[in-house]
Amino acid sequence: MTVFLVGAGPGDPELLTLKAARILATAEVVLHDRLVPEGILALAPPTAERIDVGKRPGGSHVQGVINDLLVTLGRSGRRIVRLKGGDPYLFGRGGEEVDALTAAGVPYEVVPGVSSALAGPAAAGVPVTHRSDARAVTIVTGHEAVTSEPVAWEHLAQVGGTIVVMMGVERRAHIAGRLIDGGMDPATPVAVVQNATLPNQTVLAGRLDLLAELAARSPAVIVIGAVASRATASAALVAEVVSGG
Amino acid sequence: MTVFLVGAGPGDPELLTLKAARILATAEVVLHDRLVPEGILALAPPTAERIDVGKRPGGSHVQGVINDLLVTLGRSGRRIVRLKGGDPYLFGRGGEEVDALTAAGVPYEVVPGVSSALAGPAAAGVPVTHRSDARAVTIVTGHEAVTSEPVAWEHLAQVGGTIVVMMGVERRAHIAGRLIDGGMDPATPVAVVQNATLPNQTVLAGRLDLLAELAARSPAVIVIGAVASRATASAALVAEVVSGG
Repeated sequence: MTVFLVGAGPGDPELLTLKAARILATAEVVLHDRLVPEGILALAPPTAERIDVGKRPGGSHVQGVINDLLVTLGRSGRRIVRLKGGDPYLFGRGGEEVDALTAAGVPYEVVPGVSSALAGPAAAGVPVTHRSDARAVTIVTGHEAVTSEPVAWEHLAQVGGTIVVMMGVERRAHIAGRLIDGGMDPATPVAVVQNATLPNQTVLAGRLDLLAELAARSPAVIVIGAVASRATASAALVAEVVSGG
Repeated sequence: MTVFLVGAGPGDPELLTLKAARILATAEVVLHDRLVPEGILALAPPTAERIDVGKRPGGSHVQGVINDLLVTLGRSGRRIVRLKGGDPYLFGRGGEEVDALTAAGVPYEVVPGVSSALAGPAAAGVPVTHRSDARAVTIVTGHEAVTSEPVAWEHLAQVGGTIVVMMGVERRAHIAGRLIDGGMDPATPVAVVQNATLPNQTVLAGRLDLLAELAARSPAVIVIGAVASRATASAALVAEVVSGG
């Protein structure tokens, strides 16, 4: 039986795709990330078994355990949906799960989803690209061991587009410092979108050298670049602005 | 009346969001891009007026005309849906349309969509990020005047993540050359996904220094980076492979 790796989108249940909703409605087992909202899980049949495989800080679910569980369930003959926040292939570790299923000979299908890397900024009024301001966007994870940098920040600082940092709240001071060291203007606008597309969404805005001062909390998407100034234009959305004056 | 800027997704009508489908089903006027498939347009009521504002090469619809039309229609009291391929804010020029609506005092709402920048590679078996291969992805447009570069390619070549080029088929030789000049390995895997997620999808694969040799045709998404080698692993999908031997 095919295992479905399904993107759950950024949070708002209405931002699920038609295909994701259709497949979820027929699930017998749903393995889901910690941050998938109840409003989305409720689209599965009430009889479906739910397994929360969310990786908590210091928690027990490591990726290898999830991979093994997927393979075992995939062989069970039941209809398995692996429901992942956002898109399965953008920091969703879907590639690793697909590798495990492929190695085990279990068929799978990946259903893409709306990523919060794009929908998060949009929900705060920020287009990640804009003809006059940004002609490229780099999406990067801030969630790395301190000894392992995801990218060459000094080059990223010089690329000339928007930067979207996922899972970067805890390392935001470090990231801002590396980008400024790389030559990025300290006054570059930044916006932090927390709980994007959900009823409790909040937006913080400021400038790159003051990113650490923003009282940001996970889950959040950080946008760095000229386009981020548009968040403050939607003043009603913005909970906190730190300005260098 | 609110104007809805709606992402139509990468092509497969099932990859529309629930929200997009709901709004489209109530449209009185649909302004759509040239590449939005009939299967998606058919989700609007049969009575809805359709306006194709697709910008053809050398064609008559320039962005300013579309902006003006949106404002005029937005003031008409009819229910207007501006349907854009992929996501409105990722090279969709949604930012410019929102600027025009804002300046005219016409309320609007942006509905994000699944971008072919992510769903295109996924449909060819390529995760844009992968724990071992790529921890960042830069999405860039190749569709720029020859005198205007979208990004600093020499720095992008050094960032260390996956590169996804939208609308880059015509300039692929130039782009590959700039990246190699910037220090990127000429043997870096590339994949070109044409008509992604549609029944006529085809995938070409090869290496960066031979990108120009691939018989690529628009519309296509080009993936550059180690992850692109996964396209060839799905051999059944790949129409053409150019290898340096």
